Order: sequence, then structure tokens, then C-alpha cells
Amino acid sequence: MSNHQLAEVAIIMGSKSDLPVMQDAADILKELGVTYEITIVSAHRTPERLFDFSKNAASRGLKVIIAGAGGAAHLPGMVASITHIPVIGVPVKSSNSIDGWDSVLSILQMPNGIPVATVALNAAKNAGILAAQILATSNEQLAQNLVHYKDQLREKVEETAKEVEKQNK
Amino acid sequence: MSNHQLAEVAIIMGSKSDLPVMQDAADILKELGVTYEITIVSAHRTPERLFDFSKNAASRGLKVIIAGAGGAAHLPGMVASITHIPVIGVPVKSSNSIDGWDSVLSILQMPNGIPVATVALNAAKNAGILAAQILATSNEQLAQNLVHYKDQLREKVEETAKEVEKQNK
Amino acid sequence: MSNHQLAEVAIIMGSKSDLPVMQDAADILKELGVTYEITIVSAHRTPERLFDFSKNAASRGLKVIIAGAGGAAHLPGMVASITHIPVIGVPVKSSNSIDGWDSVLSILQMPNGIPVATVALNAAKNAGILAAQILATSNEQLAQNLVHYKDQLREKVEETAKEVEKQNK
Amino acid sequence: MSNHQLAEVAIIMGSKSDLPVMQDAADILKELGVTYEITIVSAHRTPERLFDFSKNAASRGLKVIIAGAGGAAHLPGMVASITHIPVIGVPVKSSNSIDGWDSVLSILQMPNGIPVATVALNAAKNAGILAAQILATSNEQLAQNLVHYKDQLREKVEETAKEVEKQNK
Amino acid sequence: MSNHQLAEVAIIMGSKSDLPVMQDAADILKELGVTYEITIVSAHRTPERLFDFSKNAASRGLKVIIAGAGGAAHLPGMVASITHIPVIGVPVKSSNSIDGWDSVLSILQMPNGIPVATVALNAAKNAGILAAQILATSNEQLAQNLVHYKDQLREKVEETAKEVEKQNK
Amino acid sequence: MSNHQLAEVAIIMGSKSDLPVMQDAADILKELGVTYEITIVSAHRTPERLFDFSKNAASRGLKVIIAGAGGAAHLPGMVASITHIPVIGVPVKSSNSIDGWDSVLSILQMPNGIPVATVALNAAKNAGILAAQILATSNEQLAQNLVHYKDQLREKVEETAKEVEKQNK
Amino acid sequence: MSNHQLAEVAIIMGSKSDLPVMQDAADILKELGVTYEITIVSAHRTPERLFDFSKNAASRGLKVIIAGAGGAAHLPGMVASITHIPVIGVPVKSSNSIDGWDSVLSILQMPNGIPVATVALNAAKNAGILAAQILATSNEQLAQNLVHYKDQLREKVEETAKEVEKQNK
Amino acid sequence: MSNHQLAEVAIIMGSKSDLPVMQDAADILKELGVTYEITIVSAHRTPERLFDFSKNAASRGLKVIIAGAGGAAHLPGMVASITHIPVIGVPVKSSNSIDGWDSVLSILQMPNGIPVATVALNAAKNAGILAAQILATSNEQLAQNLVHYKDQLREKVEETAKEVEKQNK
Repeated sequence: MSNHQLAEVAIIMGSKSDLPVMQDAADILKELGVTYEITIVSAHRTPERLFDFSKNAASRGLKVIIAGAGGAAHLPGMVASITHIPVIGVPVKSSNSIDGWDSVLSILQMPNGIPVATVALNAAKNAGILAAQILATSNEQLAQNLVHYKDQLREKVEETAKEVEKQNK
Repeated sequence: MSNHQLAEVAIIMGSKSDLPVMQDAADILKELGVTYEITIVSAHRTPERLFDFSKNAASRGLKVIIAGAGGAAHLPGMVASITHIPVIGVPVKSSNSIDGWDSVLSILQMPNGIPVATVALNAAKNAGILAAQILATSNEQLAQNLVHYKDQLREKVEETAKEVEKQNK
Repeated sequence: MSNHQLAEVAIIMGSKSDLPVMQDAADILKELGVTYEITIVSAHRTPERLFDFSKNAASRGLKVIIAGAGGAAHLPGMVASITHIPVIGVPVKSSNSIDGWDSVLSILQMPNGIPVATVALNAAKNAGILAAQILATSNEQLAQNLVHYKDQLREKVEETAKEVEKQNK
Repeated sequence: MSNHQLAEVAIIMGSKSDLPVMQDAADILKELGVTYEITIVSAHRTPERLFDFSKNAASRGLKVIIAGAGGAAHLPGMVASITHIPVIGVPVKSSNSIDGWDSVLSILQMPNGIPVATVALNAAKNAGILAAQILATSNEQLAQNLVHYKDQLREKVEETAKEVEKQNK
Repeated sequence: MSNHQLAEVAIIMGSKSDLPVMQDAADILKELGVTYEITIVSAHRTPERLFDFSKNAASRGLKVIIAGAGGAAHLPGMVASITHIPVIGVPVKSSNSIDGWDSVLSILQMPNGIPVATVALNAAKNAGILAAQILATSNEQLAQNLVHYKDQLREKVEETAKEVEKQNK
Repeated sequence: MSNHQLAEVAIIMGSKSDLPVMQDAADILKELGVTYEITIVSAHRTPERLFDFSKNAASRGLKVIIAGAGGAAHLPGMVASITHIPVIGVPVKSSNSIDGWDSVLSILQMPNGIPVATVALNAAKNAGILAAQILATSNEQLAQNLVHYKDQLREKVEETAKEVEKQNK
Repeated sequence: MSNHQLAEVAIIMGSKSDLPVMQDAADILKELGVTYEITIVSAHRTPERLFDFSKNAASRGLKVIIAGAGGAAHLPGMVASITHIPVIGVPVKSSNSIDGWDSVLSILQMPNGIPVATVALNAAKNAGILAAQILATSNEQLAQNLVHYKDQLREKVEETAKEVEKQNK
Repeated sequence: MSNHQLAEVAIIMGSKSDLPVMQDAADILKELGVTYEITIVSAHRTPERLFDFSKNAASRGLKVIIAGAGGAAHLPGMVASITHIPVIGVPVKSSNSIDGWDSVLSILQMPNGIPVATVALNAAKNAGILAAQILATSNEQLAQNLVHYKDQLREKVEETAKEVEKQNK
């Protein structure tokens, strides 16, 4: 399904129209130094592909799966039903969604036994960071990268704060 | 999966706790003279069973599937993704549901290409009637049964109306 | 009411402003080889037309009715109250709707006895497919068309998946 | 349909289970000195009765109609589509309702041309008062009764206020 | 407050920004032959004006008040708390509103004793028609105008239906 | 209206049924050493009382008003429209409320110019604390009481934490 | 953190993107004659800054804090958890918000013990007025300014009312 | 803060009233063979404890934190703002919650940069499983335990399915 034989994270999504949102996950993983593969797996239009992908995820060496979908978003939950590796769900506010509520609730409200680690609506970037945090539980270098990333977030706010304060003096 | 080899309708649900709601579908089908089978298929805990059931549904002779589920209710949509026979979805207000909104939205908001015929929250009886209406498109006797059922509904209201009017004279 | 004397499916809607949404039902029915008629029936502005249409639907040979409406969308439910043939409801996110919630709830939440097969907000295409699935319960050729349609959906996703994978290698 | 030939107000409801809520309308009308009749008319189970009732309402001498219903509540709007006399809608929080939202939205969100005067969830008492207010636009005695009723409301609050103040001195 | 000394209906609104919505009420009243006055009364910025207006409404000869407001929309309910003549509330989807829900709920959910006849979000036209229906309970000519208006609505739909049918033959 | 001539805070509510909720405000004010008066003022049933109360609030020496109400809760906003002293609004989940949403939105969503300091649903205790915080901006002793109160909250959690930790060792 | 050593009010916000909304608080404070400082404090990206700011707020002489944030808006509540001076929360409808509901609920629904004075969505102007009302409880001149401000609001509505009435004569 | 010096997972919650829900996380972790500690940390009543806990989490050897809270639930997000190890958020439907929506949205809707892995309302069990899945990315034995756990879930459904089928033969 992919040539990135050694990817730690797979980023999948239900439709190519989700790509502009889901690209953020890829970008932050690259920035943090995590390998990934990216493809389309539709729960509803390619159910067998969903099964094959999920069944083989662990044996192919994947450690975490990021799955984005909109509307009645079954992809993250169905992948989680088949594999035992952690699945991060990204609710996408697609054009056919009712303000995003359907995407959020169909990903978040999984029954006991089958968790999906859900992030905010359209928050593929956070899905990427969460995947890195998961891998960092056994990768000290990656943990350092995350600490560094947090430092950068802080510094950027502090700089902006100074600007705003200066303009209002 | 079932001994009702000749059943026209399958009633499936994600968990035995959905049975008190879903039994209404069985009862009305029996009343209308439609054969059915009933079992548990969990999208999240038995994904292979979901696949096998859905793959074989048409060849086993099933004409309509009624699927009930609560919370992040993926069962109806996933069955519909695999089989081409009509799937009726019953959103169940299960104990882990957010007032039923999650059940409703994850069944109703299917993407283009893969419809689920959704009925009201907990409305398994209507799912049964709808299944009968579908079968009645090619079964004149069943159509007559439905017309008769509608007549009974009307008569019951008319009787109650008379009672209420009498009490308020 | 229509010259398509032999149509199997009627597509009706509450207002001409619903036509851009409802046209999708017509298009997919044509693609799948199902005959249809299309017209306007307003529950609130033409209640007698609603009655006549619904009363005569079965005897005119219609097998399935697709009804779209927005806001306090009474059309699908009222047609279903009069005829015994299956009614598919399409909630339309019209300009006077509160984010589509009113359209969805007034079509979906029908009382016991009178089902409406509800599809997703604006999902007229799925209404068309569902109508075809219903007719296919007694029409093997149509069933084959639906299987073929599902194959096409799958193939399109698989092609897109390859493109996305190639771009991200 | 009723022996109260000279009733000014009709109180109708979709089901006898709505009676405990709708009785409040009758009680306040009696208190205010307005004649009424009360019966069951189900939009979905007795559509012809709905038509007959609505068609004849004006000629039978009815001046105002109060209609209560729950879930996909089509009764008030459908009556309003047929008669030109004012229709007051009471959303009932029935057992099959999603927290009352479906009842409220399917009564309130009527399209342009066909108003329903909607009152609060379960507020049949207010429907009765509103009916009296409408009739009082041409009935000075009734207007005086309403002024008196408002005075009573005020006095009751003032008494309670004194009690509460005394207890907290 | 107004020079229309003999107006039957007052149209008031909380802010001039509500005028584009509320103008529809004036237009349909003119069309139906009902006299009206129109002005701004803000519950929150001119509470004394609100009191004076409401206190004097009946004695000035007003028969019905149409009040439109958005957000925490207190105008209709507060007018209804002071006068005994019927108040029709129009929830306006103003710029500071949360999708209109706040406007709808603060107008609709009045406590027992003080009804507001609520119409759909932004449905000032329906407020005008409802006001006319109320006045028509004692004005046969106006009742005829309303019957005629309903006929026009019906005819317009029937014409559009024919067009749509022709295009799809 | 009250014998507590020297009260700093007035606690008012729309109905005696709000008292079990609103009593929490009184209790915490007493605990923090703030004087208060408590009474019923209904926006809808005693509008003149509302006016008189609000008009005289400042001159009577009141510094802060806490107003609780449910459903279409106009009391806090209307008091705020008349007086310039700070008004704290407590949305009450009354029996006629739609899950509290109506109470929250009709208190919170005030237009620009007329703020209401809204606290959580039923959170009369927090209204009392907020009133004390407001008074403490010019009362050092009261500020110390609030610091002490915060210390107690912290200590109680720390004790509970120790218990839970001990039970799980 | 700021050079406005003598500011009575601090206006803080989670991100510079909140500034266009939050500027309204600054503008109205200036108009009313209240000193303020303005800066960025992110609960999630600068948690230590949040702590330092909140810890020192009272000793630096701040009397009131206005905090604006969007999405999972933790800033107002976390500031309120650390300081005992009043915190006014402004829910901001940021781009990543679900129609503003997340911002509103995460600011409003604080647990007992830790109030946040919440204003309407995006209503930074009202936050400024509320801050002035709080300070005016011990500042007679400021109280006069607020009375004057209310007079202006009233006069502006009265002028607009006259215009509207003139246009509709 | 805890004697479980070697715990891999910390389970924290905002209040002891959350314990009946959060105990499920402890139970499943024990069943899966994962060490944990459990305590109370209130974001709002013990903000310094929150800081200390979060600052020291990584150096104390914790790998994953499970944080449960209700209402304006700031605990999970604030912990995630301070530590770089993964935080799993459990929205708790506490007594002061608006149907759980506030808990869900204030945990889920975190801004970019600071993810919280959110599970379903009250789904502490799934939080425990997700924590185990995270640890299993570098612990083969634990991965086997999870595979075994999934097998058990499947077998239990299959048994129940047989029972249901037998009862309906």
C-alpha cells in the first residue's frame, strides 16, 4: 500500500478532499523528525482496503495511525476495531458536515473497549504532535524535539506579547 | 450465522443491550407476515463478523437489513459499505450516548454513494415497517397488509378521539 | 401530475429552490437505469395537491417516493402518512433553516407507525441510490448495476490513493 | 367532530398521550370564559381527518385552533396550511422526542406564507392565554378578564416576595 | 410615538439593524390591507420607552404588536409582560447571535402566564400574516383577503410545478 | 422592598421555585461577611416592580445585584438595562427549560452596551463569590476573606487527594 | 509584563488573532476614563506566564482582569483559579471554534468556588463596561460616566426611532 | 504526590466525585498489567499542585497521563500545556455539566500545538486502554495483552450472538 516501508506513522483519510486539512499532520511530523506514509482509505467506498490496511498495520511496522474523516466519520473507529496500535482521529469539517458535529461525535463517542484518541475539529497538526508524543515515550531524542517545540511556541507568544504591549503603551 | 435460511430481513445490533429497543422491529415484522432473523454483530468488537455477514447477505437471500447501534454507531454504515441491499439504520439512545445525538448523526450523515435509510431515535418499529414497505414493492399481499395496518392506526385514533370528546362534553 | 406514466420513482420537493439539491437524485437514477418523474409538491402551500399526489401514488404505479424539503419539513412525513409505498426524505439546508437541524429533525423524528427513510442533509444522490436499492430487491439487473456502481466508487478511491501516495514518496 | 357547536377555540393534539400537557389549555380557557372543544387529530395516522377538520374549521365557527404535537410535529403546520384562521402550536416533549428540540423546530420553523404561532415547550397554558388574547381583540369583556388575570399573577408574586423577604430578615 | 394614530398593528424592533428583516412584516400587512406603525423600541437601551409603549398600546387602539429582536431578545417578552394584547415575536439572526439559537430561545421559552406568539427565525413576513389572521377573527373582509392570499400561494406553486415537469419530460 | 436597608448585595429571582438554587448565593455571602437582601422580582409577572427595584437600586445603597431566572430569562438583562451597578446573572435550570440552554443564552447573549456578568448554570454560589470579589476591589478585609476561602478550597482538595492516594497504594 | 504600572484593568488574550475582538474592551475603557494595560497571555503556550501574571495581579494594583480566548478557552478560568480579583471572560469565536459553543462553555461552566464573569460571544465591549461598573462600586465619578454612557445609548435609539418613524409615515 | 514511584501511568481527576467514573481506567490498566498511580489534581482549586504535578511528570518516570474532569474541564489541557508526555482527556458528565457538552468541548477543542487525546464522555475505560496502546508501541508483551483483550471482546460478542439467535429460532 505504500513504499515508505519504514514509516512509524500512517496518515490516512477518507477522501482526497480531506488532504488540505490532513497535510498539517505530515508537515509537523516532518518538522519533528518522525517518518510517515500518507494515503487514502475510505471506510465506506473501500471497506476491504480498510481491512487490509488495518490488519497489516502492526506487522508492517507502523506504530501509530492518524485517520481523518468527515460527516458520519467511521474510518478512525473502524481502523481501531481491527488493529491494536493507537489510532488518532481527526474530525474534518467537510462540506457535507452539519457544522462539524457529526464528524466530532462519530469519531469521539466510541464504545468501551475500542478507543480513538480524538483531537479538535480539523486539528491534524495536533494529531501529528500527539503521534510524536506517543513515539517519544520510548525515544528520548524525539522527546527533546517536543520539548524544543514547546519552547518555540512559548517564545513566539512572548515576542507577540511584547509587540502588543509596545503598541499600546 | 442463523438458522432462518429463508429470512427476508435480518435484524442486527451492536450489543445485546440494544435488544429491548430492537425487539420492536421483530414484533412488527411478525405481525406483518415478514420472515426475519435476529443476531448481534458488533462493528467494533467483531469487525470480521461484520464483513462476513455483509458480504454474504445478498447471496444468503436477505432482501433488507435493519441495523441498530448507539453512540459512535458505525454498524449500519459499514454494512451498507459492503452490501448493495438496502440498510435501515436505527439510532439507539444507549447509556453512553450524548442524548442520542451521536447515534443519530453517525448513522444519518453518510457520504454520497453509500446511503443508510435512517429512522427516528429508538424507532425500531418504524424500521420494521419500512422493511415491509420495501419488500411490498414486489409483494402485493404484503402491500395489502400494510394498507390494513394503516387502517388500524387510523381507527385506533378515531376511537380515542371519540373518548376524549365524550369526556369533555 | 406528470407525463412519465411509467415512472418507478417520483422525486418531489417543497419548492423550486430545492431543485439544485434534488437534481442529484434524478441524475443518479438515470445513471442507474431507473425511471423517474420530478415535480413540486408543497405540503404547506398546496396541501390538496399533496393529498392527491400521495393518494394516487400507488395506483399510478410509483414504487418509491423521494421527497425533499427544508425548515419545518413536513412533506416527506405527510406523504408517508397517506401512502403505503416507501418514502425517502431528503433534509434540505434551505436559506431559512437553522443550520439544517430543523430540516433533519422534522423529517427524521416520525412517530411509530409512519416511517420516513431519511438520508443525510442535502444527500439527494443517496436518496436516488436508496430508491434503486429498494427496487433492486426484485430486479436482478438493477442489483447488478448497483454492484457495478459500488465497484466504480472503490476504483476511483484506489486511483486517488495511488496519486496521493506517489506525490508523498 | 364535536358537539360543542359554538366553541370559539378547538384544542387538538396528535395523540392521547399529549392530553396531560394539553389539558392546561382547556383549564385556562374555562377560567377566562372562552368556549372550546377538545379532540385528537393525528397528522400522520388520520391525515383525512386532519383535512376535514381544517377545511371546516372556519365554517363551523371556530376562531382559533390550538394544536399540540411532539417529535416530528407536523399537526400545527398542516392545519395552518389548510385553514386561514390562526393556529397556535404547542411543542410537546413526548417520550420519543430528542429533548424537545424536534418538537420545537418542526412547529416553529414554518416557511413564509404559513405562520404557526408557537409557544414554549409544553406551554399549553400559554397557548390558551394567547387564544384568549386573540379573541379579546374584538371582545372587551374578555380583554378585561385578561387584565384581571395579569393582576392576579402580579399579586401572587408580590405575596410570595413578602414571604421570602420575611423569612430572610 | 407615532403619527399613525389609527394603526391596528405596531411593528417594533430592538435596533435599526433589524429593519431589513422586519420590513417584510410591513410589506405583507400593506398588501393585506392592514394599517400599521413602525418604530424602534430597545428593551435594553430604552427600557422606559419600552414601558410607555407597552402601557399605552391598548388605549392607543393597537390590536396586535409585532416585536423583532436578536441575541438575548427580551423585547417581545417584556412587551407581553406589560400589555394584554397579543404579541408576536420575530427572532432575528443578528450579527452577535449564536446561529440564531439565542434569539429563538429567549423569545419562545416564555414562562406560564405570559405568552409570545413566536414565528420562525427571521420570519417577519409570517408575523405580518399572523397579525392579519388575528385581526381577521373579527373582520370578514380581511379573512377573504387571507383566503385569496393562500390561493395565490397555491397557484404560484402549481405554475412552478408545471415548469419543472415540462423541463424534465 | 426590603428591610435590609444597608445590604450591599441584592439577590433576586423570577420565582420562588428558584429559591433552592439561589439560596447558595445567600449562604456564601454570609460566610464571606457580605450583607445581602433577598426577594422575588419577576420580569414577566411584575414588570413595574422590576422597574422600581432597578431604578432605586443604586440610591438605596446596593452595590451589586445577583439575579437568577430560568427559561426565557429576562430578569438579569432587564435589571441591567435600568441600573448602572453590576448585575450578575444566574441561569437556572427550571422545570420548563430546554436542558438549561434557554436560561443560559437569554442571560449571556446581551447586546453591546448592557453587560450581564453570567455564571454557570445553577451556579448561585459562584454568583455570591463574584459579588464578594467585586466588593473586595475596595474592601481589603473582604479581599483577605476571599484569599482565605481560596486557601480552604485548596486544602480540602489536598486532603481528599491524600485519602484517594492512600486507598490506592 | 507591562509599563502601565498604574492600570486598574488588564486586558489579556490567548493569541494575537483575538486582538481585533478584544480591542473593543480597550476602546470603551478609554472612553469611560479607566486605565488599562493590554497583552497576550496564552494558557496553553505560556503556562508559566499565566501563573506569574495571575499571582502578581493583585499586588501590582490591578483591580479587574478581562480575559478573552477561543476554542477550549482555559485562560479566564485559570487566571481566576490563581487570583482573587474578579475575572471577566470573553468567549471569542476563533477560526478553530465550533460556532463559538466551545468558547462559551469552557469559559462559562466554571465549578463552584471559582467564578468567571462571562459576557456574550465576542462581546469585549461589554467586558470593558462591566469592568468599569465593578470599579464604579467605589468610584462615584466613574459611576456618573456610566450613567452618562447609558443616557447616550438611549438618546441614540430615540433618534433612530424618529428617523424610522419619519420614513414610514 | 504518590508512593507508586515506578508507575507508568498517572490517573488524575478534578474532584473526588469523578472517582466512580475514573476507577474504570485503573481497573483496566491493572487487568492489562500496566502500573499506575491515582490522585486528585484540581486545575481550579489547586493550580500550583497542577503545575508541580505536570512539571515533574516526565522526570518522575511517568509515560502517560489520564486526566478526567467535568464542566469547564481545564485539567487535561492545562497538564498538556506544561508537560510533553501524552495526555488523555476523559470528559466527565458531572452534576453541574450541561448534558456533558461543556466537558467534551473544553477538553477536545485544544488549540494547535497542545493536543489532548480525548475519549468519549465518561469513557475512562477507553482512556486506560489507550494508555496501554501507547505504552505497547515499545512493549511487545503489552501489545500481546492488548491483542488478547481484543480477542476476548470478540468472543464475548460471539457468545451473546449465539444466545440471541437461539432465543429467536
